[in-house]
Amino acid sequence: MDLFSKHQQKLEAAVQALKQRHYFFAYPESPKQYPESAAMEAQQAFKSWTGTRFSLGQMEGDAWHGEEVSPFTRQALGIRYPIYEPSRLVHQVNLATASWRRASVQERVGVLMEALDYVKDRFFEMAIATQHTTGQSWLMSFQASGPHAADRALEVIAMGFVLQTQFVDEVTWEKPLGKVSLRLHKTYRPFGRGVGVVIGCSTFPVWNTFPGLFANLVTGNGAIVKPHPGAVLPIAIAVKAIREALSNHGYNPDVLMLTGDRSDAPLTRELVLHPEVKIVDYTGSTSFGNWLESLTDKVVYTEKAGVNVVILDSVTNLDAVVQNLAFSISLYSGQMCTAPQNVFVPKWVPSEAGPLTQDQVVEAIRQGIQQLGSNPKTAAGVLGALQNEKTRQRIAEIAQTMGQTLEPAINEEFPDAAVFKPVILEVKASSSNLYREELFGPLAVVIRANDTREAIEEATVLAREKGAITCLVYSTNQDLCNEIALRMNELFVPVSFNLTGPVWVNQHAAFSDLHGTGGNAAGTACFTDAAFLARRFVWVGNRTLVS
Amino acid sequence: MDLFSKHQQKLEAAVQALKQRHYFFAYPESPKQYPESAAMEAQQAFKSWTGTRFSLGQMEGDAWHGEEVSPFTRQALGIRYPIYEPSRLVHQVNLATASWRRASVQERVGVLMEALDYVKDRFFEMAIATQHTTGQSWLMSFQASGPHAADRALEVIAMGFVLQTQFVDEVTWEKPLGKVSLRLHKTYRPFGRGVGVVIGCSTFPVWNTFPGLFANLVTGNGAIVKPHPGAVLPIAIAVKAIREALSNHGYNPDVLMLTGDRSDAPLTRELVLHPEVKIVDYTGSTSFGNWLESLTDKVVYTEKAGVNVVILDSVTNLDAVVQNLAFSISLYSGQMCTAPQNVFVPKWVPSEAGPLTQDQVVEAIRQGIQQLGSNPKTAAGVLGALQNEKTRQRIAEIAQTMGQTLEPAINEEFPDAAVFKPVILEVKASSSNLYREELFGPLAVVIRANDTREAIEEATVLAREKGAITCLVYSTNQDLCNEIALRMNELFVPVSFNLTGPVWVNQHAAFSDLHGTGGNAAGTACFTDAAFLARRFVWVGNRTLVS
Repeated sequence: MDLFSKHQQKLEAAVQALKQRHYFFAYPESPKQYPESAAMEAQQAFKSWTGTRFSLGQMEGDAWHGEEVSPFTRQALGIRYPIYEPSRLVHQVNLATASWRRASVQERVGVLMEALDYVKDRFFEMAIATQHTTGQSWLMSFQASGPHAADRALEVIAMGFVLQTQFVDEVTWEKPLGKVSLRLHKTYRPFGRGVGVVIGCSTFPVWNTFPGLFANLVTGNGAIVKPHPGAVLPIAIAVKAIREALSNHGYNPDVLMLTGDRSDAPLTRELVLHPEVKIVDYTGSTSFGNWLESLTDKVVYTEKAGVNVVILDSVTNLDAVVQNLAFSISLYSGQMCTAPQNVFVPKWVPSEAGPLTQDQVVEAIRQGIQQLGSNPKTAAGVLGALQNEKTRQRIAEIAQTMGQTLEPAINEEFPDAAVFKPVILEVKASSSNLYREELFGPLAVVIRANDTREAIEEATVLAREKGAITCLVYSTNQDLCNEIALRMNELFVPVSFNLTGPVWVNQHAAFSDLHGTGGNAAGTACFTDAAFLARRFVWVGNRTLVS
Repeated sequence: MDLFSKHQQKLEAAVQALKQRHYFFAYPESPKQYPESAAMEAQQAFKSWTGTRFSLGQMEGDAWHGEEVSPFTRQALGIRYPIYEPSRLVHQVNLATASWRRASVQERVGVLMEALDYVKDRFFEMAIATQHTTGQSWLMSFQASGPHAADRALEVIAMGFVLQTQFVDEVTWEKPLGKVSLRLHKTYRPFGRGVGVVIGCSTFPVWNTFPGLFANLVTGNGAIVKPHPGAVLPIAIAVKAIREALSNHGYNPDVLMLTGDRSDAPLTRELVLHPEVKIVDYTGSTSFGNWLESLTDKVVYTEKAGVNVVILDSVTNLDAVVQNLAFSISLYSGQMCTAPQNVFVPKWVPSEAGPLTQDQVVEAIRQGIQQLGSNPKTAAGVLGALQNEKTRQRIAEIAQTMGQTLEPAINEEFPDAAVFKPVILEVKASSSNLYREELFGPLAVVIRANDTREAIEEATVLAREKGAITCLVYSTNQDLCNEIALRMNELFVPVSFNLTGPVWVNQHAAFSDLHGTGGNAAGTACFTDAAFLARRFVWVGNRTLVS
């Protein structure tokens, strides 16, 4: 059975889910649904890699380098990755892509779905690698780099399949001309644009890389992965698995290659400026993202910084709201692009228990976050560790200017871990520029507003100027919810309402939640709409007169 | 009955045709299938407009201006159009678009399909206006600005409908959590990016404007049409009709506005640089198109100059080939973006009648074109008139440097018409840079090649460096055809094979032929693929916890 037929049922389910946007996971999100021995084997594999050159089965690197440090143990991993001179790398990928770009869409879809199953067998290795590079808790590492990333990849494959089969392959076009008719045989075929570079980030090295990577491959492009030097291993494991699938199914694995670089000698600019690089996917800072977007001869998708806002208008039960907020603010120590940052609290917040004062609400939020961070049983799993020492420094400095301190939290498993309780700053609305930028890390700003109206005005100004990936609103007033939805949506910011219990604004489910809209200042990418795929390939049609 | 239901059947037929790419015309292409009186009434309307201010029902212009001259009578039309200060214009369109962007996709599709029927009632007026601004023959004017343009518009509406209904409007997302389940109500909605400007060209003022214009409107954007000052009337008539449809169906017609400008004081740069202008569609020169593509905060679709090539490898019947080629080179005097320019002829051309020498083939092409242009019965209808005196001057100068003359052709109906027989230049392959640029106007270059291999190499170099919108190949060797197809297709150039009889490489049929690929140097637009629509709108989703 060919690979397309093998995976066709799953593909069709994915296409349906993509369109219907209902609950769908192709890869189980609980580690318990995977082989029991896998976790232990992954531990051993991880140990065996430390201090060695990681073998991707690629050509010899021009240099070897590694600088990963575990945020949990504070020990260097000592794993080195090949670094390639960009033009040599692009040349190699371009050469290898000839047969891949000429393969049918069905063929590519089949191989890539098979490759995802190869990746699935590496979920536990990717989990431990993610934990010890990004500082995510083990469970988050497993889910974000494993099943959730694979689902996002499958989603992109499904959209790529839909768009590349939108037109028939061929048709006999017959124009009636009185007694006779004119006949043309026509063919239609999508061709990939060239080589795509996917630039990874240090916090979600797989989840944020897979969409662009699989989008490039499914549309017939070669792909180069350039991870963040601080988080290479998780995506290196995945790249190796995908390369094995390509190779085992008759393709030159160099269709997909990974290059490391050094943070003191980055090669990203030179790499993306190579004329054969036609597509760039990027997750990271606004300044570099803006530079990429200025490259007019490339197709560029970015996810940059945004300022995510919470508007607290009215609540049913404050405790439930505070629990939810405390969790989403604390989760992975505020290092998610979807984490709430600015919480607007008006002077009075109506609730089922009667109107609450601003002070009551602010205090409840502060306590909720403090409690979560002080409980050794929950704190370690929720907070994660800081990926980058610079994040700690910056947040500590901001805290200090406001007379506060960044306090460590306890992680019993890893006593040296860089774990900190989120700092809660308080400002009056419109009185401060503090909250007008993304403040990446364990920090939230409670903004005291006169009323909800002021909060909405400030939130929309922020959305227009800085962009956002999420917005969370608590209100029992449906008209107000509708108004906020429309105003934020027209600025291309999605809104979540009244989340409590085990559903958090940070989470975006594949096949159902779009991640980013691509329409505001936080970036040009949306996982996954037609625009995310359609520019990676070009339709070309030929015509032949039928005599 | 609402407008969507009224037009639903036609829409579904259009969507099917778009996907299946079979023969489909929603608007009959023969003038005989329209009311008999329409041609006469259009003549009268045209006369009544000359020397007046054309009323679009828009706010008072900041100035009024017109500079159209009929290429057939060489008389100024004397029709003036409003010119607006760009920020005033963008402000007005933006204001008017509020309810349009909030309307449902179905609502917008219904109104726009109704608007196309309003436009249909103006086909004869648009035909005469097109003839006396562009220099197209009357029949070409009717078809290109009338039914063919309306079909391209409908095609864009259909693609816009498909993409904007790709996701459901809403879903209850239900995640099983053991005994209970987590439920979120989710909504999904496409929002237009803002205001789109469509910049028209002087040769196909309606056909090249409609795709961008209807693409902007169907995706919920406001639209500004900025025609070429030499060809305003055809699109002004259409804009007026669409505005009437908007107004009659409850929308502020200023969702769509037209502004004139002066060729000695163009306002296009200032207009597109306005921060509220988010989308630009353009047909015209490479230099201005490249400048537009450099605007990184705009979504830009261009159709620029390309170099279209013919490769003559082997033929069945030379006469049939020559007739076809002579027609497609002569049609509208080489002013079509799809017109063949460079004809490669190898030293020997096999045919059913035995091998033909290069001289025989070159002479046959020369004679075919000469005969077509010398026959008063066919010349006028095929050649059309030169839209711009500068085109005549440039072609005459090029001819002179090669020792040739640009000769007038006869048009009995319009003795003053600017009609010329195409100049045929001859060069040796690789010996000249003459054919390495688009030579817009009545001119073709016959390139003497050693063999087909040299022709292919030269053709692919041209395709890579200059881009192309069409490529035409004559060969009886199927393997060679396959090879050329793949090589040109991988440079994103479509290829037509062995066209003879009444089917010409210049013609692209809506719903079946893609126009441009958007992948080579000739432009970034493809009429009509998903990429042509998907970037004009943004999906935004909201989530509400179902308690």
